[in-house]
Amino acid sequence: MKSFREEIWFETKKKKEFLNITAQVEGLLKKSSIREGLCLVNAMHITASIFINDDEQGLLKDFEDFLERLAPYDLKGYRHHQTGEDNGDAHLKRQIFGREVVVAITEGKLDFGPWEQIFYGEFDGGRRKRVLVKIIGL
Amino acid sequence: MKSFREEIWFETKKKKEFLNITAQVEGLLKKSSIREGLCLVNAMHITASIFINDDEQGLLKDFEDFLERLAPYDLKGYRHHQTGEDNGDAHLKRQIFGREVVVAITEGKLDFGPWEQIFYGEFDGGRRKRVLVKIIGL
Amino acid sequence: MKSFREEIWFETKKKKEFLNITAQVEGLLKKSSIREGLCLVNAMHITASIFINDDEQGLLKDFEDFLERLAPYDLKGYRHHQTGEDNGDAHLKRQIFGREVVVAITEGKLDFGPWEQIFYGEFDGGRRKRVLVKIIGL
Repeated sequence: MKSFREEIWFETKKKKEFLNITAQVEGLLKKSSIREGLCLVNAMHITASIFINDDEQGLLKDFEDFLERLAPYDLKGYRHHQTGEDNGDAHLKRQIFGREVVVAITEGKLDFGPWEQIFYGEFDGGRRKRVLVKIIGL
Repeated sequence: MKSFREEIWFETKKKKEFLNITAQVEGLLKKSSIREGLCLVNAMHITASIFINDDEQGLLKDFEDFLERLAPYDLKGYRHHQTGEDNGDAHLKRQIFGREVVVAITEGKLDFGPWEQIFYGEFDGGRRKRVLVKIIGL
Repeated sequence: MKSFREEIWFETKKKKEFLNITAQVEGLLKKSSIREGLCLVNAMHITASIFINDDEQGLLKDFEDFLERLAPYDLKGYRHHQTGEDNGDAHLKRQIFGREVVVAITEGKLDFGPWEQIFYGEFDGGRRKRVLVKIIGL
């Protein structure tokens, strides 16, 4: 069994942003030289998500609207803000969209259906953050 | 370390449907002859979910109502539909219920609590779609 | 490849509760003596979640409010209750927050960002329940 680990760093300009990181994960998979196994990709921060969906700009904007509707930015509304934070909404958005994905590795490739793309979802950006890629297999 | 991969194909008749696929995954696990490890089950399409819950018909209908309330079918409401699609709601429903589950394999069995069952959640059915089962272990 | 399995048992006093189980998972990881791999932590019951976020009491209360707003406790509102159950809301809350996390193991440690903590989210407590920890690796 082989094991591989590397971080991907981001500094988003906007508070909320979706970044397609599929090519970066593919690059790391190639570097790992693992051919069969599992690839974990997870946000290392708790106001960001990793998820898999379609890379279509209208849809990504729909995602943003949806999350804002369910967990709106609200300076007064969250108890978490009594600590001095202002990102209660970002913690909730992350909970809805999830922390991680696990992707099968088959014949050295991300074993994907036709439209699957890996996204980093930032909900409290404008600072340096990172994603962990851990691959185990043969 | 051993590795196993197989797809399960579906063609649902209805737009929205929940299918209990536990027996199919168990069959593939047996075929793999892996005794200890991890089993990834993921939708290969981005308008469907894999999740684990109870196989109770009333509950599954509650799930459907819940998802419809949070992310209603709406021809005009989603930017994604400017591409000609009509399934923006299905992408959102999939985001709420998730893409995948990872199940422990212990002594050749899905290592489940008393009521855990694996479901395929279809949110934009009536066409052929597939699920990936990838198992790694000993 | 090595494989390790153990259960963590709970009996929460309250109906809804969030328990930080990071130290317990770390203890099991140490016991496993696995240095590189993946650690699956999943609820074995379908009215509870495992998730990763920040251990801040205000935020945890925000999570509770959020879940109650999206999937309120409601004796009459859920079809699932026709079976005699009263926990339809708990099944829904679990679907939103998820069943499991997969954590990378690197150099014998949970490979975490600065604030990541593992939580057990109980949505139908007051009875004995358990969580599965399965670790595979080297």
